Amino acid sequence: MRSYLDIDTFSEWTNEEQNQFALSVTKGLIIDMVRKANSGHSGGPMSSADFSQILFTEYLNFDPSDPEWFNRDRFVLSAGHESALIYAILTQLGWLNIDDLQKFRQLNSRTPGHPEVEIPGVEATTGPLGQGFGMAVGMATAESMLRASVSELIDHFTYVVAGDGDFQEPVVLGAASMAGHWGLSKLIVFYDSNNAQISGKVDRSDSTNYAQVFEGFGWHVQEIDGHNHEEIREALEKAQVVDRPSLIIGKTIMAMGSATMEGDYETHGAPLPLDEIAKTKEKLGLPSEPFYLPNEVISHFQNRFNSLKEKVIDWNESVSESCKDKNFKLLWNNTVKEELDNIDLPVFERGASIATRKAFGTTLDEFAKQLPSLVGGSADLEPSNYTGNFASTYGDFSKDNRLGRNLAFGVREFPMAAAMNGIALHGGLIPFGGTFLVFADYERPALRLGAIQNCRVIHEFTHDSFWVGEDGPTHQPIEHAMALRAIPNLNVFRPADAQETTACFKMSIEQKSSPNALLLTRQGVKVLDQSMEKTIDGVSKGAYDVTNCDNPELILLATGSEVGLAMEVSQLMQDKKVRVVSMPCWEIYEKQPEDYKSLLIPKRGAMKVSIEAGITMGWDKYIGSNGLSIGLDHYGASAPGKDLAEEFGFTATKVEAKIREHLNKLL
Amino acid sequence: MRSYLDIDTFSEWTNEEQNQFALSVTKGLIIDMVRKANSGHSGGPMSSADFSQILFTEYLNFDPSDPEWFNRDRFVLSAGHESALIYAILTQLGWLNIDDLQKFRQLNSRTPGHPEVEIPGVEATTGPLGQGFGMAVGMATAESMLRASVSELIDHFTYVVAGDGDFQEPVVLGAASMAGHWGLSKLIVFYDSNNAQISGKVDRSDSTNYAQVFEGFGWHVQEIDGHNHEEIREALEKAQVVDRPSLIIGKTIMAMGSATMEGDYETHGAPLPLDEIAKTKEKLGLPSEPFYLPNEVISHFQNRFNSLKEKVIDWNESVSESCKDKNFKLLWNNTVKEELDNIDLPVFERGASIATRKAFGTTLDEFAKQLPSLVGGSADLEPSNYTGNFASTYGDFSKDNRLGRNLAFGVREFPMAAAMNGIALHGGLIPFGGTFLVFADYERPALRLGAIQNCRVIHEFTHDSFWVGEDGPTHQPIEHAMALRAIPNLNVFRPADAQETTACFKMSIEQKSSPNALLLTRQGVKVLDQSMEKTIDGVSKGAYDVTNCDNPELILLATGSEVGLAMEVSQLMQDKKVRVVSMPCWEIYEKQPEDYKSLLIPKRGAMKVSIEAGITMGWDKYIGSNGLSIGLDHYGASAPGKDLAEEFGFTATKVEAKIREHLNKLL
Repeated sequence: MRSYLDIDTFSEWTNEEQNQFALSVTKGLIIDMVRKANSGHSGGPMSSADFSQILFTEYLNFDPSDPEWFNRDRFVLSAGHESALIYAILTQLGWLNIDDLQKFRQLNSRTPGHPEVEIPGVEATTGPLGQGFGMAVGMATAESMLRASVSELIDHFTYVVAGDGDFQEPVVLGAASMAGHWGLSKLIVFYDSNNAQISGKVDRSDSTNYAQVFEGFGWHVQEIDGHNHEEIREALEKAQVVDRPSLIIGKTIMAMGSATMEGDYETHGAPLPLDEIAKTKEKLGLPSEPFYLPNEVISHFQNRFNSLKEKVIDWNESVSESCKDKNFKLLWNNTVKEELDNIDLPVFERGASIATRKAFGTTLDEFAKQLPSLVGGSADLEPSNYTGNFASTYGDFSKDNRLGRNLAFGVREFPMAAAMNGIALHGGLIPFGGTFLVFADYERPALRLGAIQNCRVIHEFTHDSFWVGEDGPTHQPIEHAMALRAIPNLNVFRPADAQETTACFKMSIEQKSSPNALLLTRQGVKVLDQSMEKTIDGVSKGAYDVTNCDNPELILLATGSEVGLAMEVSQLMQDKKVRVVSMPCWEIYEKQPEDYKSLLIPKRGAMKVSIEAGITMGWDKYIGSNGLSIGLDHYGASAPGKDLAEEFGFTATKVEAKIREHLNKLL
Repeated sequence: MRSYLDIDTFSEWTNEEQNQFALSVTKGLIIDMVRKANSGHSGGPMSSADFSQILFTEYLNFDPSDPEWFNRDRFVLSAGHESALIYAILTQLGWLNIDDLQKFRQLNSRTPGHPEVEIPGVEATTGPLGQGFGMAVGMATAESMLRASVSELIDHFTYVVAGDGDFQEPVVLGAASMAGHWGLSKLIVFYDSNNAQISGKVDRSDSTNYAQVFEGFGWHVQEIDGHNHEEIREALEKAQVVDRPSLIIGKTIMAMGSATMEGDYETHGAPLPLDEIAKTKEKLGLPSEPFYLPNEVISHFQNRFNSLKEKVIDWNESVSESCKDKNFKLLWNNTVKEELDNIDLPVFERGASIATRKAFGTTLDEFAKQLPSLVGGSADLEPSNYTGNFASTYGDFSKDNRLGRNLAFGVREFPMAAAMNGIALHGGLIPFGGTFLVFADYERPALRLGAIQNCRVIHEFTHDSFWVGEDGPTHQPIEHAMALRAIPNLNVFRPADAQETTACFKMSIEQKSSPNALLLTRQGVKVLDQSMEKTIDGVSKGAYDVTNCDNPELILLATGSEVGLAMEVSQLMQDKKVRVVSMPCWEIYEKQPEDYKSLLIPKRGAMKVSIEAGITMGWDKYIGSNGLSIGLDHYGASAPGKDLAEEFGFTATKVEAKIREHLNKLL
């Protein structure tokens, strides 16, 4: 066993000795980070270290001088609590430094408790278990789609390190079934199977035969000793060539390399004790002072850099060469460089009754024609989501049709949303995914993680209120619009008509730093009698006056299908000056200048009434103390939508009566 | 083929002829229901009909005169969109009638679009795919636990009919891995594999080998022709005796029995066309008039009723006999009859600093001693959730230890929550389940379905704000308290201290018609200096004055850890009369009489400030137009909790400064 005392002779060591010592240095950094922060996970990073170190030093393709190089292999640490491992590796790679490691888990550091995508070399924010795996499926999907539709110059692997907790989390199982169905052969997952969780041994809660399960999903599965470097290399090389996604189950030992705590699940979420650190460092041949990282080890880590850089240069030259073809260049810029041309918009007949879900379909078709980067599909609600035309025009992405742009997600909302985040993070494609609004709950963890990561994705949520009708309370969203607005940095659009739907879609594409949710009606709603220009301008402000009413006595604040209802109510109340404000997006409205807001929805003066077919919670902000919220604060019921509108008071006469009653009370 | 024209000779037909005709009658009812409603699903109910009819007429144990008989076999239609099937069957059983069927999917009918648990014979509200399966796992768990811990008199099967969409939904996979691990041998699932979904053939989105996957989860799997009655019977009988949960994959044909549309996925979510109905009825030997249900078929369906009733009588007698033993009777009443005695409460030292998650653990231990029906566990966060003592005291429920009361759920929040709903629906047990608050998102679909069904379950959500600290933004709930409050009929408790935690726990147990979520701190918070009696009284009103301040000038509305902060602020502002209101539960507060509410939080007069370490959305309702909301409207960060409190302004001096600034602005 080599030790730091011999470091001067490092260049004379055998390669295996160098590797082992480098690995020990990585483990030392892990131990020191967690100890200094007095918080974090030691055991897992040490059990995953062998695989990760070999991957980064011998297999992973990347540009040492550009973490964003488009054709890099993606590496996703799905077991995000093992963050100390990736930070130790990225420090040897040169994208982080010892100072960063010393600030592990401190405010404003580049080494937060769980990996965050803003850090160079971190491909995805992980920590919520299972989702790293799900995002990696999206990345591998994006790679496969782009390789087929744009160029074989896009050709890289997506690697994942996942732990026991990931595999228990069902989103992994759903995402794995998609990956198997799509035959994502460039997806390689290392399962760090160390049989230890926060609560103890894994067999307390799990006896699944994951090899069998993943073979059932159509994966190639290998089981190896996760600490045996030769087995790791052989498994990786095999995984790279099989025609299916690959699972490498590495049997490992929690806290591998520690002096006396190997296999101890108490190391899962805690620093090693000080005396254990001292003994471990001695065992590993490390000095006792913390954060030991000699230049010899850095150089050893970086010994592939020249050849990696050459690969990048070659690749860039090939791209330049290909871009001499004008059509190729256009396609390349549209996708890889995410350049957007002006998009022609669909035209809708004013006054016609069009469900906004249908308008979404029309808009999708129009954008898809002009934007080759637009891909996606529905969670088995194709006819309901109006994505059927997209599917039949562009075909299903499948093992046999890599050119397909439609993703037939099946009834897998959460894996869909996680994969959408992965596609967006990969870059080059803009993903959309459709389901019923009520099932937004199923994908909520991914909606949040997309928002944290500023992923540009488009969630199509149709059937957006009790107007769903006969399907009943389990299918009628009541609280969902507001619950989605609760998620920071998620744009929640509830367009009033077909034109607003197009405008919301356009905004979703153009702004690149938020996920977008479009809440759409099942039922027909009248197209407002205004120009598309006015609509686009209004939507771009989040809320606007659709009545051109100055000095109103009464302001009706409405979204989606209730804007048309508010218009009807305003017709019934011509004895008052009524302004109807359509508020398709609260988040965007909140960003407008104060003077716009105070003019549109003045705090004093006119009485304000909110009308939305959902819970009233949250509306008080806009209606003030004297206002009125018309909504629905209980579950729906199974009946035709029109009957429910009567029952729940969402007809013009009933709304009018409520408003007049409230006005009388105020007098 | 027999027809309605021969019905007079029904008693002379062969048994197989009678069965086939009865099945045709069921299909006729299905077709007529969907056609009359002009909405709903025809194809799936027809493909699942063979299995379901055989199950109900030959195998299912129930009390014909009491749908709530405790030892009945449970039947869960996980494919809830096949509701027409269960309604047709329940009509023959006698718990619904033709009039109900004619009102299919109409307002206030007993035949809503998806099965609702309030309907006699419906064990669970289903429709959101996968969750019926998950709830059934909970029911089978409850049965197994009660059989071991109470009496072998509790001894029944749990049957499920699930479709392709269920199996794609990952919650099924997660719940199946739990059921396999626990060896729930009395759980029998029929997978109606008709290879047709809303969007077309299943192979567009799925190529999973479910037999292999479920074997990997430890299930017994059989594949049969789902229309072959002998194969169905053999498979059921085999499934009843194996020592593992059973999956029967029935290969079936969508719309089986229809004249020309067998296998057509367009029948999935639509009525059959009129001419197809006419031809189908002719083919099935049915008259053309709708809702044909002859008494002969009803009698045929009910021919086991006498023997079923005898079984029930025998069972009741055995129960009476056993209840002669006083201890047994007590246990029986505590569990099966859900009788509650007075529970001794734990005592906490006033002024001590105790994390409310720790107080939850102490409370759980105290209640568990006195309440044998309390079962549950953590989603692999046992030490963090403080359920470790419960686990070690009562042991893990497992194949080898049916007496275990701890459920080691693993990292499976959604299956956990679905199973908890199932345990509650089964009756006899009160389930709790713990995880981090931020992961409430993972189980949100089941939180909603629990609330719709009035399930008494206790969700323990610890680590309830940015005070989580180093784990960072992915682990810090910001919007979750408010997003949970958005769900109708979910009690969201955020106790201020250890005593309130106990009071909230007690309320969760005592009120039986809502799920409960307890939002708990990771960090220590001071026990308020007030009696447990005052605390219990206060919590029972949802919100109360912890300062005994009359005629306040300033009212601080706070929840959870911010109550202590508000107390500190009130100390800094002794120049004003400050009332601090602890609001542990909005939902309960809203139900209080107007005069209590207008006294505690008057609409006019005192300036009101809300203080909660989460989004401010929703608080305007209480603070009014001139109030102030102190919260956090963006994601957190990775750092020690105290550093974040400084950074985000959650210290007494910073809150005081904000309030004074706001007061100055108002002047």
